[in-house]
Amino acid sequence: MSLLVVGSVALDSVETPFGVQEDVLGGSATYFSTSASFFTPVQVVAVVGEDFPETYLDFLKSRNVDLQGLTREAGKTFRWKGSYSHQLNEAKTLDTQLNVFQHFSPELPEAYRSAKHVFLGNIHPELQGRVLDQIQGPRLVAMDTMNFWITGERAQLEKTLARVDLLSINDGEARQLAGEHNMVKAARAILKMGPKRIIIKRGEYGALLFDGDHVFSCPAYPLEDVFDPTGAGDTFAGGLMGSLALAPEINIEALRRAMVTGSVMASFAVERFSLDRLRELDRTDITRRYAAFQELTRFDSLDLPEL
Amino acid sequence: MSLLVVGSVALDSVETPFGVQEDVLGGSATYFSTSASFFTPVQVVAVVGEDFPETYLDFLKSRNVDLQGLTREAGKTFRWKGSYSHQLNEAKTLDTQLNVFQHFSPELPEAYRSAKHVFLGNIHPELQGRVLDQIQGPRLVAMDTMNFWITGERAQLEKTLARVDLLSINDGEARQLAGEHNMVKAARAILKMGPKRIIIKRGEYGALLFDGDHVFSCPAYPLEDVFDPTGAGDTFAGGLMGSLALAPEINIEALRRAMVTGSVMASFAVERFSLDRLRELDRTDITRRYAAFQELTRFDSLDLPEL
Repeated sequence: MSLLVVGSVALDSVETPFGVQEDVLGGSATYFSTSASFFTPVQVVAVVGEDFPETYLDFLKSRNVDLQGLTREAGKTFRWKGSYSHQLNEAKTLDTQLNVFQHFSPELPEAYRSAKHVFLGNIHPELQGRVLDQIQGPRLVAMDTMNFWITGERAQLEKTLARVDLLSINDGEARQLAGEHNMVKAARAILKMGPKRIIIKRGEYGALLFDGDHVFSCPAYPLEDVFDPTGAGDTFAGGLMGSLALAPEINIEALRRAMVTGSVMASFAVERFSLDRLRELDRTDITRRYAAFQELTRFDSLDLPEL
Repeated sequence: MSLLVVGSVALDSVETPFGVQEDVLGGSATYFSTSASFFTPVQVVAVVGEDFPETYLDFLKSRNVDLQGLTREAGKTFRWKGSYSHQLNEAKTLDTQLNVFQHFSPELPEAYRSAKHVFLGNIHPELQGRVLDQIQGPRLVAMDTMNFWITGERAQLEKTLARVDLLSINDGEARQLAGEHNMVKAARAILKMGPKRIIIKRGEYGALLFDGDHVFSCPAYPLEDVFDPTGAGDTFAGGLMGSLALAPEINIEALRRAMVTGSVMASFAVERFSLDRLRELDRTDITRRYAAFQELTRFDSLDLPEL
C-alpha cells in the first residue's frame, strides 16, 4: 500500500575518521525513500534548488521513488555539514544552510492525498501538520522530530504529536521531550501526549518499541566497520514504514518485524558514505541479514530443575 | 555441578538519588553467590574483618552458600563508598578501604579444589591465578577484571587471561583492554589474548557474547525504577555461571540461556538497595521474568512478497 514521506533532500558534506565527502546525496526523505523502496513504492514531498544534480534524481527514480511531489525552486539546495569523531556515535553539525528549505511549504499532488502510510520526517512541526491536513484517511501516520523543535517549537510540536500514531525519535530526544531520564518513564510520558506507539532509537544499541503494555527490544547489528552513521535513523524509519506498508494488519507482530527490518536497513546504510551501500543492495542481502538478526537474538526457554 | 567464586565480601555505603545506605552487605562474591544460589550451591573464597556482622553471614548460609572458604581476619572489612547521579549508569567511587583485603591470599579448602565451575571475581590478577593453581580439572573458568588492573597490572592480567575460558567485562573495560573503540574489533582482539569467549556487559543496554563466529545480543530488561545499580554485573555473572553449572554441555545454546538468566537476575538486583530484592526473590519470579525476556525480544521471520 502507498507510502508518503515529507522531509529534506539535501547535499551533505561529511567528515568521518575514514574520509571526507563533499556535497553528496543526503537528507531525511532521501534516506527514508531509498530504504523503503526495497519494500513498496514511495511518494516524496520535498524541495531542491537549481544546483541539485540531475543524477541524484535519476538515482531516486531508478529506485521507483515517485518525485511528483519534489519541487525545484530558485536558489540553492539545503546543505548540511557535519563531522564524526572516532566514536562515530554523534554528529557534530559544522554548518547548516537552509537555502530553498527556508520557505518550503509542502503542497501535495492530488495523487498523494490518499496515501495510506505517512512519514513526517524531521521538519518544522507546523509543516508536518500542514502535510497531514492534505491527507484523507491514512492507515498509519508516523513522525520524527529533533531537539531543535522540542525546545524551540514545543507548542506546535505537541499539536502535531497529538495527531500521529507513531513517534520515532532517539533516546536523547525522548528524554528531552519527556523531561525524564528513565527510558520507560519517558516513553509513558510521551504516549500521554498522543501517539499510540513510540519507538526510541538508541544508535548502536538498537531500538525500543512501546505499544500499550508491549515492549519490544530490537538490537542493532554489531558491525566491525561503521563508516558513516549519517542517515541511519531515516534509513531505519524507511525500512520500518516500508515493512508496515506491506503488513495486512498493523499489530504488535507487524511492528516487531518492521523494527527488525528497519534495523537491518540501517546496518547497511552505515557501512559506506552517503547512500553508497544502499545503491548496490538487493533483497537477498536484506533477507540474509534479517536471518542474521534472528540468529543474533534467539535463545531457548528456561527449564529449571529442582535445587 | 559445583561452582566456586573468589571475590570481595564487603560493606558498602551507597548514595543514589533515592537514598543513602551505610555499611550494607556488598562485594562481588556476595552478589555473585547470592545470585548463583538460585541455581546451584556455591563455594565462596573471600575474607572479612572482625567487624563483619554475623547476620550477613547468616543470610548467605540461608541461601545455601558454602562459607568454608571465607576467613575472618583481624582488622576491618573491605569497604567501598560510592554514589550514583540521576543517570544511574556509572558509580563514582568516593572511598575505598581495602582493610583485611589488602593481604588477602586465597587458600582453598580441600573440598573446593575439585570445583567444576570457577568464577574469578574482580581481584588482583595474580590472586586470580593463585586460585586457579589450586583447582584440578575445572570444566569452565570465567573471570572479571577492571580498569585498575588493566592499566596497573597488565602483564599479570594477560597471564591470567590466557588461562580462562570466558572473560566477562563491561564495554569501557573491553575498549581499554583492546585499545580499540569498535566493540566487534575489541572483542576479537581480546579473544586473541586467550579466552575462548568474551561477554561484554553494556549496563542498561544488555550484553554481547562473542564465541567463535557466534554473536549473541542479550537485552537488559527495561525497568521503570532502577534504584541502585551496585552489584548488577556480579549478579549477572552469578546467574550466568549458576545457569551454566546446570547445563549438560557448555555450548552456544547453553551460553545464550545463561546470559538471559544473568540479565534476569541483574534486573532484579537493581530494583532495591544492596541485596534486598534478591533476599525476597523466589524461582517463580525468575522463570516469570525469563518469559518476559522472551516476550521482549521475539519476532517472526521475514516473508517478502514480490515488489
